[in-house]
Amino acid sequence: MTRPLPAINPSACEVAAELALVSGAPRLTSARVPLLRQITVLDEYGSQRQIAIPAERALTVYVDRQELVTLMTLGAAPEWLVLGWLCNQRLIGEVSEIESVTVDWEVGAAAVKTHAGIANLAERTARRVVTSGCGQGTVFGDVLAQAAELRLPDPALARIRQSTLYAVLEQMRLRNSIHRQAGSVHGCALFCGTRMLLAVEDVGRHNAIDTIAGWMALHGLGGNDKLFYTTGRLTSEMVLKAAHMGVPIVVSRNGITAMGHGLAEQLGMTLFGRAANRHFICYSGLARFDAEPEPQRPTVRVAIG
Amino acid sequence: MTRPLPAINPSACEVAAELALVSGAPRLTSARVPLLRQITVLDEYGSQRQIAIPAERALTVYVDRQELVTLMTLGAAPEWLVLGWLCNQRLIGEVSEIESVTVDWEVGAAAVKTHAGIANLAERTARRVVTSGCGQGTVFGDVLAQAAELRLPDPALARIRQSTLYAVLEQMRLRNSIHRQAGSVHGCALFCGTRMLLAVEDVGRHNAIDTIAGWMALHGLGGNDKLFYTTGRLTSEMVLKAAHMGVPIVVSRNGITAMGHGLAEQLGMTLFGRAANRHFICYSGLARFDAEPEPQRPTVRVAIG
Repeated sequence: MTRPLPAINPSACEVAAELALVSGAPRLTSARVPLLRQITVLDEYGSQRQIAIPAERALTVYVDRQELVTLMTLGAAPEWLVLGWLCNQRLIGEVSEIESVTVDWEVGAAAVKTHAGIANLAERTARRVVTSGCGQGTVFGDVLAQAAELRLPDPALARIRQSTLYAVLEQMRLRNSIHRQAGSVHGCALFCGTRMLLAVEDVGRHNAIDTIAGWMALHGLGGNDKLFYTTGRLTSEMVLKAAHMGVPIVVSRNGITAMGHGLAEQLGMTLFGRAANRHFICYSGLARFDAEPEPQRPTVRVAIG
Repeated sequence: MTRPLPAINPSACEVAAELALVSGAPRLTSARVPLLRQITVLDEYGSQRQIAIPAERALTVYVDRQELVTLMTLGAAPEWLVLGWLCNQRLIGEVSEIESVTVDWEVGAAAVKTHAGIANLAERTARRVVTSGCGQGTVFGDVLAQAAELRLPDPALARIRQSTLYAVLEQMRLRNSIHRQAGSVHGCALFCGTRMLLAVEDVGRHNAIDTIAGWMALHGLGGNDKLFYTTGRLTSEMVLKAAHMGVPIVVSRNGITAMGHGLAEQLGMTLFGRAANRHFICYSGLARFDAEPEPQRPTVRVAIG
């Protein structure tokens, strides 16, 4: 039994808004690799068939020739991933500190060249926290401490209506994604109102959010008027990363953990989870939310026989 | 609208087989904390209600007073988690190298005392790989290199029938889990044939597998005749950890990534994914699998109107 195979590269990284680069933006390669691999499997009917699974490759990041970290990634937009990772780890403040990012998949390496080095690099990357996140589940120690310094916009200025949330969910539902074709990836997307700006998938959901962070930094985009969507759980480090990007509203198809909740409450971030179709739970930050409640439906009982 | 709240500690760590400890087993505390937290949320109908979410707390591991890592964990069985983490990182060979593990949730610390220290500890934990896994997504650099040395039992000796697989899935379906009550956790379980020995849930699926590894090491249990079940994806580091535990058969409710697949093929490990009810895909290691194929059902077409 052979089914038609999907295209090798569906929109694992879809740029829906073409924007100008910030001045002093680094030079980036455009390394591309196949994102799916075909394998033969056996199913419960005893049938052998071919399916597509997401690729996953090691990308070792070198900053000024010093090895820093190895990211396991799908590989849809590795240069933005590396930039966003450096931003979200607070190792750089601006992308203009970087001269170039050169990704070479032949050797699985991303060579980052800075203009003036990163101060105390070894020291700042020494502590490690193993988190509950998928992929990139390593938040260097001082990131947590910086949460106290983060400020999200006033609830009066950054709000969301229930109908806007529904429009976001509908767009995510309709996407032709790697997840739909091969499963086993997480997706993230950045919205301004109901407009999708960028959607990224990766084997690690932290890679997906970091890739978005890299793209935002490269185009000088602030997060205050943005909404961030993720298929992954709302864990502490997802909340932290969104806060670092300045995004006050985060929506997940999935649930939440207690630290994610606690941190969002502290930050005044609005979190929606279990969000799909016309269902959701608002876990925190109700002050930003303009509810347009669905009518309560009576329970439908079907009489049989 | 108030729903009845679940019990604070469902069976997030269920020991279904009481076994004797290995000789020289370390002394362990039995630190216990609430695994669920109640929060108030708003839903799509505009109703505020209380739900339970999984707890998530930081546990910093000190080995002979030296800080090693911070694990973000649900906290169901922290002592076994720490032991298993040390085993799966290959920092210890036997649990008898450890004199005691003392967990104190007041300060979020696990103090590990060894009999004779761990050689080259700083050096061996210096390299880091950020993986695509959920939780504990940090595999220290040399672990990957050790994969080449791992040997799983001959396919003639460690096999699984389709009916056994179904029996495992049915037991996992019926469990009263944290996941069922609060979502946002991953579950793992260890089986010998159709008999469940231990089931563990955690906010990080790697914590769950490490907890099982710790329990196995503490009771001197080998993995050759075991089956490992996980709700998480079959990524490279999940395959590696199962291989370190000597387990030749791994079953997931979820999918697979290309590196997980490649590694399993190399190791001769049998991987089942998308496994629930009477459905599954066998991705690799068909040589261990005794198929008892379901009859192919014709597609049912319902004529409407």
